[in-house]
Amino acid sequence: MLKSYLQDTWATPTATPDSAAAVRDAVTGETVCHVSSEGLDIAGAFEHARRTGGPTLRALTFHQRASLLDEIAAAVRARREELYALSTRAGATLTDARYDVDGGIRVLRDYADRARAELPDAPYLVEGPAERLGRGEDFLGVHLVTPSPGLVLQVNAFNFPVWAPLEKLAQAVLAGMPSVVKPATPTAYLTEHLVRILSEAGILPLGTLQIVVGSVRPALDLLYEQDVLSFTGSAATAAALRTHPNLVARSVRFNAEADSVNAIVLAPDVPPGSGLFTAFVREVVTEMTVKAGQKCTAIRRVFVPRVQESAALDAIASELAGVTIGNPASRDVRMGPVVSLEQRHDVRRSVRAIAESGRLVHGDPDKVRVVDADPERGAFLDTLLVSADPDASAPHEVEPFGPVATVMAYRDTVHATDLMARGRGSLAASVVSDDLTWTTRFLQGAAPWHGRLHLLDSTNMGQTTGHGSPLPALRHGGPGRAGGGSEMAGVHGIVDLMQRTALQASPRLLDSIR
Amino acid sequence: MLKSYLQDTWATPTATPDSAAAVRDAVTGETVCHVSSEGLDIAGAFEHARRTGGPTLRALTFHQRASLLDEIAAAVRARREELYALSTRAGATLTDARYDVDGGIRVLRDYADRARAELPDAPYLVEGPAERLGRGEDFLGVHLVTPSPGLVLQVNAFNFPVWAPLEKLAQAVLAGMPSVVKPATPTAYLTEHLVRILSEAGILPLGTLQIVVGSVRPALDLLYEQDVLSFTGSAATAAALRTHPNLVARSVRFNAEADSVNAIVLAPDVPPGSGLFTAFVREVVTEMTVKAGQKCTAIRRVFVPRVQESAALDAIASELAGVTIGNPASRDVRMGPVVSLEQRHDVRRSVRAIAESGRLVHGDPDKVRVVDADPERGAFLDTLLVSADPDASAPHEVEPFGPVATVMAYRDTVHATDLMARGRGSLAASVVSDDLTWTTRFLQGAAPWHGRLHLLDSTNMGQTTGHGSPLPALRHGGPGRAGGGSEMAGVHGIVDLMQRTALQASPRLLDSIR
Repeated sequence: MLKSYLQDTWATPTATPDSAAAVRDAVTGETVCHVSSEGLDIAGAFEHARRTGGPTLRALTFHQRASLLDEIAAAVRARREELYALSTRAGATLTDARYDVDGGIRVLRDYADRARAELPDAPYLVEGPAERLGRGEDFLGVHLVTPSPGLVLQVNAFNFPVWAPLEKLAQAVLAGMPSVVKPATPTAYLTEHLVRILSEAGILPLGTLQIVVGSVRPALDLLYEQDVLSFTGSAATAAALRTHPNLVARSVRFNAEADSVNAIVLAPDVPPGSGLFTAFVREVVTEMTVKAGQKCTAIRRVFVPRVQESAALDAIASELAGVTIGNPASRDVRMGPVVSLEQRHDVRRSVRAIAESGRLVHGDPDKVRVVDADPERGAFLDTLLVSADPDASAPHEVEPFGPVATVMAYRDTVHATDLMARGRGSLAASVVSDDLTWTTRFLQGAAPWHGRLHLLDSTNMGQTTGHGSPLPALRHGGPGRAGGGSEMAGVHGIVDLMQRTALQASPRLLDSIR
Repeated sequence: MLKSYLQDTWATPTATPDSAAAVRDAVTGETVCHVSSEGLDIAGAFEHARRTGGPTLRALTFHQRASLLDEIAAAVRARREELYALSTRAGATLTDARYDVDGGIRVLRDYADRARAELPDAPYLVEGPAERLGRGEDFLGVHLVTPSPGLVLQVNAFNFPVWAPLEKLAQAVLAGMPSVVKPATPTAYLTEHLVRILSEAGILPLGTLQIVVGSVRPALDLLYEQDVLSFTGSAATAAALRTHPNLVARSVRFNAEADSVNAIVLAPDVPPGSGLFTAFVREVVTEMTVKAGQKCTAIRRVFVPRVQESAALDAIASELAGVTIGNPASRDVRMGPVVSLEQRHDVRRSVRAIAESGRLVHGDPDKVRVVDADPERGAFLDTLLVSADPDASAPHEVEPFGPVATVMAYRDTVHATDLMARGRGSLAASVVSDDLTWTTRFLQGAAPWHGRLHLLDSTNMGQTTGHGSPLPALRHGGPGRAGGGSEMAGVHGIVDLMQRTALQASPRLLDSIR
C-alpha cells in the first residue's frame, strides 16, 4: 500500500488491497503496489501547506527560493539511479528514464539560474517603469507581483512521474507557494519515491511539498481563491475539473495541459534523400518511440506534400523496422511497453478508428516481437504507422497515446494550414523547411493554433532539442484541445502563479517598496 | 424596437413589443425602447466577423490598428453631446456621462499612443531576446505573439454602456480581432447609439464591429477555439458562462470582470481634521455618488481604526447630507437615480441585509427628497451609510450596487488585513496613510486579494485619478469574487487576447520574421 507524505510525515491509507487500485509492472504484469487515499487527512494537508509552507516560502526572496531549487536538484541527482531502476517497471528504457529524471533536474537548475538572472533578490517583483497617471509627478503606476497565500495542487499525468512534479514544483517554489502533488495511479510509486528522496534529504521547509497518493476529488471542495489547480491529463478530465462548482464559485485558478493531436509538416522544398528529409524522418520515429509514444507533445499527424507521400512512408517504415522492442532493462531495447494493459487496449482501439480512414503501413496492433519479455503479460505494442485520407475526421480527432503516427498528404500550402488547424489546438508542431519565405508565411497561419512551433532547417537540425521536449525558456501549453494553459515560458511560468496587482502610489512609497 | 448592427447593416428583430423586454427611463419611468434578439442572424454575424473583419484587422500592423483607434476616438468625440443627452435617460448626470463617454475616448487614445510607443509596426510581436536552446548558435528560442483568427464577444454590464465597449474594442482592434458587442438591456440604447455613430462615420472596416441587442445565449454554442468571451457583470452569470459546455469543450478563452465588495482602509496614522483624512472622506463620498454608486470598482466597505470610527462616520454622513439628488439633467443635481426600479429594489434588499449587522447612520432606503423629478416613478435612492460589526458576514458578502457604503472598525493591522481578504477578491482597494512602513507591510498582505491598490497619501491626494477609475496603464480585474480576469494593464491587455507561441528556429528564420 503506497503511502502519502502529508504534514511532513508518511501516512498509510485505511484501504485494504481489495478496496485499493492495484498498479502492475508494465513489463511483467506483477503487482507493484496498491493505491488509495482512503482515510487520508487531505484537509489537514491543505491547511498545513497554507499555514506552514506558504508563509515560509513567501518570506524568502526569489534568490533564496532559487537556492532551494538547487538543493532539490542536487538531492534528486544524488539518487537518480534509484529512479532509473524503478522507471523500468513503468516500461521506461534508460533513455526514457533520463528524459524524465534528468529532464526534471534540468528544469530545476534552469529555473534557479533564471530566477537569479531575471528576478530581484526580494520576495516580490515590481514591474516598472513607473508611469505617470495624473497631472503631477506624485501619482504613479506600476504593477506589483506578489505570492498568493494559497497552495498549488498538482494533478499529474502518468507519463512524466518525475519531470512533471519537479517542473511544477520549480515554478511554485519560486512563486512562493507550497505544493501538494497528486500523481496518476499507474506511476504513483515513482513520484512517491521522488518525494521520499526529497524528504530524506531534509532540505524541504515544512509544509512546502506533500503528496496525496490516490484520489483528491473530494478535496476540490477545499480549494479557495488563492490556490491554483495545475492539471495535466486528458481533455475529458480537464473539462470535469474546470466546471467543478467550488472552483467556479471561487474563481480558483486552473491551468490545464491536455493531450493534443500534434503535427509535423514537411514543406514542399525538402527532397527525399536530403539531410533535412532524414532529420524529418528521425524526428517522427523519435516521437513515436521515446516513452513508447506516451508524450503529450508527441507527433501524431505527419503532413507531407502528395508527391513525397510514398517516399516519406517508406523512409519512416524502414526506420521503424529497425526499432528493437522489449524489456526496457535490456541493453539492446530501444522501446519498452506502454504503461499498462488498459493503455494498450486504448491505443489499439484508437489506431483501428484511424485506420478506417486509410491503412496500416507498418506494424500490427495485435502482435509484436519482443526481446526478453512476454508480449502478452507486458503491455507491449508494435510501432504503428498509418497512412490516411487527410480529409477524414478520425486522424485529427483521435489521439492514440502510444507508438503511433499517421501520414497524410496535403495538396497545397492552404490545405496544409487547414489540416494543422483541424487538430483544434495543439501543444507543439514541427515545420521542416529550408524555404524561409514559405515558413514565415506558413507559421503565421499555424501559430495561433499552437503553444510551440519547432522550425527545423538544414542549419539547426543538428542542434535541435527535439519536437517533443518542452523547455523552461519556452511556453508549454496550447490553445483549444490542448487545454488553453501555459507553463514555463521562463519567468511567465512563475508570474502566472502569482498575483499581479496594479499599484497607484507616490514616488516615496514606490521607493520604500523597491 | 432597438435594432442590431449585423453584417454591416441595421437589422430589426422579429419580436413584437409584447415579446420583447421594455427598457424604461430611469428618471421618468417612460418606455425608452424594446429589446430582443429574436430572429437575428447571430451565426451570420459571427461568420462575417471571422471571414471579413478578422482578416482585414490581422493584415494591418499594430500602428495601422492604432490609427483606426484614433479615428474611432475622433468620431465619438465629434458626437459626444448626443451620448451625454441620451445618458440622462439612464440616470447619469453630465459628470457621470463624461466619465463614461470621455473615459472611453481616453482609453482609445491612450491605447493608440501606447501601441505606437510599445509595439512594432508589424502585424505580430516577437518577444525576445532570442535565447540559445541547444549547444550551437543555430537553435534559438523566442515567443511569437500572433492575432487569433477568431472574434471577441463582449457581454457587457449596464453601468458603462460607452466606456466598456470602447475599452474592449481598443484592445481587440490592436490584437487584430473583430468585435461583437452584446450590451446589457437597461442601457442597450446607449451602446446602440455609439455603434450608430461609428457606422455613420464610415471608418470601421467591414465586419470589425457588430452589435447584438438582446440575448446571445444561443450563440455561445457557436464560439470556437480562437474566440474570446469577454464578460463584465455578476458573479452568478460569470459562473454560468464559465461552465457552458461548448466553451469548456473548446477551451474558449473567457475573461470575467465581476462585481466585488471593494474596500478603503484608513490607516492608524491619519488624524481626523488632517488634509489626508478629508481626502479619505471625499474618496468615500465620490465612490458612493458617482453614477449613483453603480460602479464595479466602487467602495462598499470602509475600514477605520476603532478610535476614529465615530469621526469617520460623522464626516462621511455630513458630506453626504450636502449631496443633491434628483433629475440628472438639472444643473444642481450631483446624483441621479439608479438605472431601474428593479435595481433600486435589489439595493434596498441588500442594504437591509447589511444593516442587520449594524445600523443605518445616514439615509433612508425607502424615502428620498429629489429635485425636479418624481421619487417613486424614477429609480431614486438616498445615499445610505451603514455602520456595521466588522466580524459579521453580510457586509463582506453582500454588494449593494448603488449609493451605499458600510463603515467598520478594525482592532489592529492584522484584523484590517483579514477584513480586506473577507471580500474574497476585489477589483480595487484604497489605502490611506502617510506611514510608509505601515503601508509597505500592509500592502503585501492585501495585494494578492486585489487587482488594483490605490495608495493615497498627503503628497499625491491632490493628483489622484480616484479609487474607482480603471486606467489603461493598469490592470483592471481581480482574483476570486472579482472573476479572476484581467483587462488593460497596458500592453498585457492586447497580448492576452493574442496567442503566445514559443518558436524554436534558426537565426536566419528569426531574421526573416522580424
